[in-house]
Amino acid sequence: MDNLPKCGANYVSLTPLTFLTRASKCYANRTSIIYGNVRFTWRQTYERCCRVASSLRSLNIVKNDVVSVLAPNVPALYEMHFAVPMAGAVLNTINTRLDAKNIAIILKHSEAKVFFVDFEYLEIAKKALELLATSKMTRIPLVVVIDDIDSPTGIRLGELEYEQLVHQGNPSYVPEEITDEWDPITLNYTSGTTSEPKGVVYSHRGAFLSTLSLLLGWEMGTEPVYLWSLPMFHCNGWTFTWGVAARGGTNVCIRNTTAKEMYTNIVLHNVTHMCCAPIVFNILLEAKPHDEYSKPITTRVQILTGGAPPPAPLLEKIEKLGFHVVHAYGLTEATGPALLCEWQEKWNELPSENQAKLKSRQGVSILTLADVDVKNIDNMLSVPRDGKSIGEVCLRGSSIMKGYYKNDKANYEVFKNGWFFTGDVGVIHQDGYLEIKDRSKDVIISGGENISSIEVENVIMKHKNVVEASVVAMPHPKWGESPCAFVILTKNSQIKEVDIIGHCRSNLPGFMKSQIIKKAKIQVKSTEKNQDTMSKFLLCLVYNSNNILNVISQSED
Amino acid sequence: MDNLPKCGANYVSLTPLTFLTRASKCYANRTSIIYGNVRFTWRQTYERCCRVASSLRSLNIVKNDVVSVLAPNVPALYEMHFAVPMAGAVLNTINTRLDAKNIAIILKHSEAKVFFVDFEYLEIAKKALELLATSKMTRIPLVVVIDDIDSPTGIRLGELEYEQLVHQGNPSYVPEEITDEWDPITLNYTSGTTSEPKGVVYSHRGAFLSTLSLLLGWEMGTEPVYLWSLPMFHCNGWTFTWGVAARGGTNVCIRNTTAKEMYTNIVLHNVTHMCCAPIVFNILLEAKPHDEYSKPITTRVQILTGGAPPPAPLLEKIEKLGFHVVHAYGLTEATGPALLCEWQEKWNELPSENQAKLKSRQGVSILTLADVDVKNIDNMLSVPRDGKSIGEVCLRGSSIMKGYYKNDKANYEVFKNGWFFTGDVGVIHQDGYLEIKDRSKDVIISGGENISSIEVENVIMKHKNVVEASVVAMPHPKWGESPCAFVILTKNSQIKEVDIIGHCRSNLPGFMKSQIIKKAKIQVKSTEKNQDTMSKFLLCLVYNSNNILNVISQSED
Repeated sequence: MDNLPKCGANYVSLTPLTFLTRASKCYANRTSIIYGNVRFTWRQTYERCCRVASSLRSLNIVKNDVVSVLAPNVPALYEMHFAVPMAGAVLNTINTRLDAKNIAIILKHSEAKVFFVDFEYLEIAKKALELLATSKMTRIPLVVVIDDIDSPTGIRLGELEYEQLVHQGNPSYVPEEITDEWDPITLNYTSGTTSEPKGVVYSHRGAFLSTLSLLLGWEMGTEPVYLWSLPMFHCNGWTFTWGVAARGGTNVCIRNTTAKEMYTNIVLHNVTHMCCAPIVFNILLEAKPHDEYSKPITTRVQILTGGAPPPAPLLEKIEKLGFHVVHAYGLTEATGPALLCEWQEKWNELPSENQAKLKSRQGVSILTLADVDVKNIDNMLSVPRDGKSIGEVCLRGSSIMKGYYKNDKANYEVFKNGWFFTGDVGVIHQDGYLEIKDRSKDVIISGGENISSIEVENVIMKHKNVVEASVVAMPHPKWGESPCAFVILTKNSQIKEVDIIGHCRSNLPGFMKSQIIKKAKIQVKSTEKNQDTMSKFLLCLVYNSNNILNVISQSED
Repeated sequence: MDNLPKCGANYVSLTPLTFLTRASKCYANRTSIIYGNVRFTWRQTYERCCRVASSLRSLNIVKNDVVSVLAPNVPALYEMHFAVPMAGAVLNTINTRLDAKNIAIILKHSEAKVFFVDFEYLEIAKKALELLATSKMTRIPLVVVIDDIDSPTGIRLGELEYEQLVHQGNPSYVPEEITDEWDPITLNYTSGTTSEPKGVVYSHRGAFLSTLSLLLGWEMGTEPVYLWSLPMFHCNGWTFTWGVAARGGTNVCIRNTTAKEMYTNIVLHNVTHMCCAPIVFNILLEAKPHDEYSKPITTRVQILTGGAPPPAPLLEKIEKLGFHVVHAYGLTEATGPALLCEWQEKWNELPSENQAKLKSRQGVSILTLADVDVKNIDNMLSVPRDGKSIGEVCLRGSSIMKGYYKNDKANYEVFKNGWFFTGDVGVIHQDGYLEIKDRSKDVIISGGENISSIEVENVIMKHKNVVEASVVAMPHPKWGESPCAFVILTKNSQIKEVDIIGHCRSNLPGFMKSQIIKKAKIQVKSTEKNQDTMSKFLLCLVYNSNNILNVISQSED
């Protein structure tokens, strides 16, 4: 049976490009894209992508060349997810929040041949190109401006504009055949904080499998109306750039995730699905009571969230508005979400607080991931499934990146013994659900003991006047590191540091005590949103010999 | 980017075996199997499969050996879908409706090393083994009896019994690693009518991708309760053997598809999903009004049907009972369903008759199929998408079989120019939905004109007193072939041939006229169910020069 040959009929490269070809045939006249007054059907989207791909070939783009783009969630960015690989090239979507320096670093490292820039980002793009020009041995990419397709501005930088490439392109272009599914499809740079950004390469195979996995995990059925609240530059929109085509859905493109843009589009187009970080819940919540455009939501909107566990109170509030939240965990290197908190029927009977707690866990592996484990780094053994034993989260499967581009050192560090090491620290509960405790680099090591910044954040977040809390490591002369908390209070809140400190004293979990933290400090910086002044407070956690927690505060201006 | 290496972390063979490993971790304590009073959890199912796999290794089963099984939908057959490939072997499920001769042919052709037989099928298995013994150069497989796990009978044939293999096996067995996803996983023989059965080989890759495709196409969410009304020997239960594990669902196993077994289990276990041929609808419908076990169905049961287009009146009736039908089309060579009639929101507004008509179409390709086409066989060009132009349905994609086992001639015939030729004849409608018109071998060629037997069947089926109609080609001295219809009437029906003939006269579609069928004959054999006597009628279709249809009948005993 082994010598039955592979042929064109039974062994076809897995690539998300087939989703568009299929959509152009099966869903030809359904609406593919809505953006302001602009509408396209799947047949049109396919044709436009063929045109752009053929134009790229005319610009001498060949196989494996990199095409970079700096744009918000406009139709052109969506189309490029197909058009660029249809030309055989590799799409590099750049985070629009980066500064000119980082953009220049990415353009240089990726050796981008063409650089598409949305008209709103021309200033920063120009600066990046200037920086690039001062760099030695660097090829300056050809610039193509993406003007607003709904309200053209006429703003240009050089001669080329996106719609012109569409217009001049060949609608009957035959897309580059993907002969090897291991070929690269996209290149996504992870944001650098201390180090330079790393270029994560996805294969056609990985992108295809992740797309199917996420449709399955989120149970996104046919004909979704998908609001682009998650930037497409985030792991290619967690693969939903390709997934919406697979489902014959409608992409509702928006420039900004303001409450107005989101609510208007949700109500107008009966949005069924959207992805976002939990922070976006706040935008939706704060707008709700008083803004005229926030009409009641008539469809139940499914939200897939990730990036941080959604805090329980936020979950309860957002679901009351008509949103239904599913929580996923992932990272750029895993083509976006790798775990998803699959809901269980029996949990519906639990009190809402317990439900929120269960929902904030990262969950179980998506279907195309071959395995997930939490390993004790010292001995590389799996930790017990007890919800307590901490280890590093490891993944393996065909949805994991090909590797970092031109960075053997980084590849060597993350790929070990047939596993990809995420750098995240977590536990596995008895029911098989995984819960992240921290980024390994965010674990605060104070007096030789590990403090999970997420644990402390979660406690602070439970205070009813707290909107956001972020805990980071702060250098400390005696303890090495000490936790420092940044806290955003609700509007017009009158609470003081002493309230937060009292709250911490009452609520810091037994879990932390069990780690016998001898002495650690938490600095609470409280602030009100839209207010620049800050007052600082110092918070000392002292466990005495009986493991009783005492909290001592002192002012520190 | 091309030289980023594949490693164990980012390139893992696609195999449905990962679904069971994952289920044993993520859904460990959920019920995996229900059969009478028997219950297993996913952790237990995994362990039992490990035990069986290790026992198979102890019986000298090695990589790519064939393990055959003749059994109804009992837990052992389900487990073998994992246990056999976990031993590195290839599972061959044999159709329980075959006669001893065909079973012997399959055992011989597949070179089966072990033959598992359910206790109810021992007599026919013994006959098959006797036939095999008379055949030269044939190795007789080791026989393992599958006794009833719920009510053991003690019936044996030789020494080995399935539960004994479970008992003696190693629960910590480490499954054979699938190093190449192109390796075979199962071998399914297509039933032979005139020719010998052909052995269709699936790869791990194909089985994995088809499973995901069908979960997606049918939108089967998490925690399904799946009733095994479709034989697992049919394309491995249209991949749902593996799919239910992927979804952490519950398999409700039954021995027979009697109305009693189906209704009892549906109500008792809140079944959510089942697959079956449309003929099973009749069993469900006929039992409904009077049988005590047919309590009202409280959950909405999703039915995936295929094998034949579900007739419109049957669809309406079955949906009124609480079933929701989705229609799929496939064949053994495509790992089961390859097309699925994806429902469109806007169709809900149509009259139910139009809805049924739309639903009876075969639909659009599943997501892992790279392409579907209908080709004019003369010039190999795609037919126009007009719903009228007929051609052969061709498929390509990684869910197509590896090929026929030891049958180069058959492989040569079906794999051509990078396509798999299904042997089915169909059209593509303007909306991209495909509709099968006939098996190419079932097209009746009468006087040089093609008559679709399905077209004639559909017309006869529309008669309110007709339960089933089947039209086949009958040799004819003048016209070469002539259509012959076998008709089953509703119970106690008093209608006569003249009524059927009148009905045909009124309803034969313009479509047939457009093919300018000069002269054709249809013979109607009417019968009542459970009644052996038959009367025969001859029906002549005559198109005159103005394309006006005249039907002339004459008796023919």
